[in-house]
Amino acid sequence: MATTIRTAAPADIPQILAFIRALAAYEREPDAVTATEADLLRDGFGPNPFYFCLIADHGGHPAGFAFYFFNYSTWKGRPGLYLEDLFVHPEFRGLGIGKALLQRVAAIAIEKNCPRLQWEVLDWNTPAIDFYRAMGAEFLDEWRNVRVSGDALQLLAGADL
Amino acid sequence: MATTIRTAAPADIPQILAFIRALAAYEREPDAVTATEADLLRDGFGPNPFYFCLIADHGGHPAGFAFYFFNYSTWKGRPGLYLEDLFVHPEFRGLGIGKALLQRVAAIAIEKNCPRLQWEVLDWNTPAIDFYRAMGAEFLDEWRNVRVSGDALQLLAGADL
Repeated sequence: MATTIRTAAPADIPQILAFIRALAAYEREPDAVTATEADLLRDGFGPNPFYFCLIADHGGHPAGFAFYFFNYSTWKGRPGLYLEDLFVHPEFRGLGIGKALLQRVAAIAIEKNCPRLQWEVLDWNTPAIDFYRAMGAEFLDEWRNVRVSGDALQLLAGADL
Repeated sequence: MATTIRTAAPADIPQILAFIRALAAYEREPDAVTATEADLLRDGFGPNPFYFCLIADHGGHPAGFAFYFFNYSTWKGRPGLYLEDLFVHPEFRGLGIGKALLQRVAAIAIEKNCPRLQWEVLDWNTPAIDFYRAMGAEFLDEWRNVRVSGDALQLLAGADL
């Protein structure tokens, strides 16, 4: 059976949300997803979308997705491509679908003249780490990821809680 | 002397590039910056900018900058605010300018209904790490940053080298 990769359309949103939830469960955060279909429609399919999405179909069934947006390299003076989510449904693994999605994302980065394709991986996810290394990825382990959210963000902004 | 924080204008681009170069030197990559003024003008000041920038002036002199864009949380279904660069020129340190810039960026995140403000810090930059922790930041050390660029990106995309 053949795999095809296509740009997501609004009709794919229920499937995209199902992929997001399945990936969160795999990442051991099954209850972390509060996004709704309305959120994904508003933010991905307006005139200035905040994200882009590819769907991999295998034998006519949605098998995986890649969810990305553009960041910016101040060193290069160019947008970079940031891959937020890459996921293949467990029943479709071992068929090269993840590699095909990653290759398509890399081709989009080249087409958009992006000097870099970046993403993150959980440190215990050795199958993914091995796969990414085989794809030519480097690991920028000297950079720590920092986040402020919730009450801490409100406090930092000077809001009254 | 008072500090004021304002949105950058095209006339600030030479100063923004000077800040980017000074930050790269501080990060021990003084030769990494290939961005030009034309790059920053094209990508930050068109109809759909790839980035946004704040300038801190102190006593009438540009003292620091914050350079940001929007990423996307698939879990929250909302854009997040990503702080690419935060820098205060050494001669203006100790005056609370970095904190004022970070607070303004947090206020923009709240105003834009972003659930998160995120950035990265080099693991040897303890003064910055301590400062961020004091500002309520958490460190997401289970996530490793991954990148494909240059020839590896071309190869992944299936291009002939």
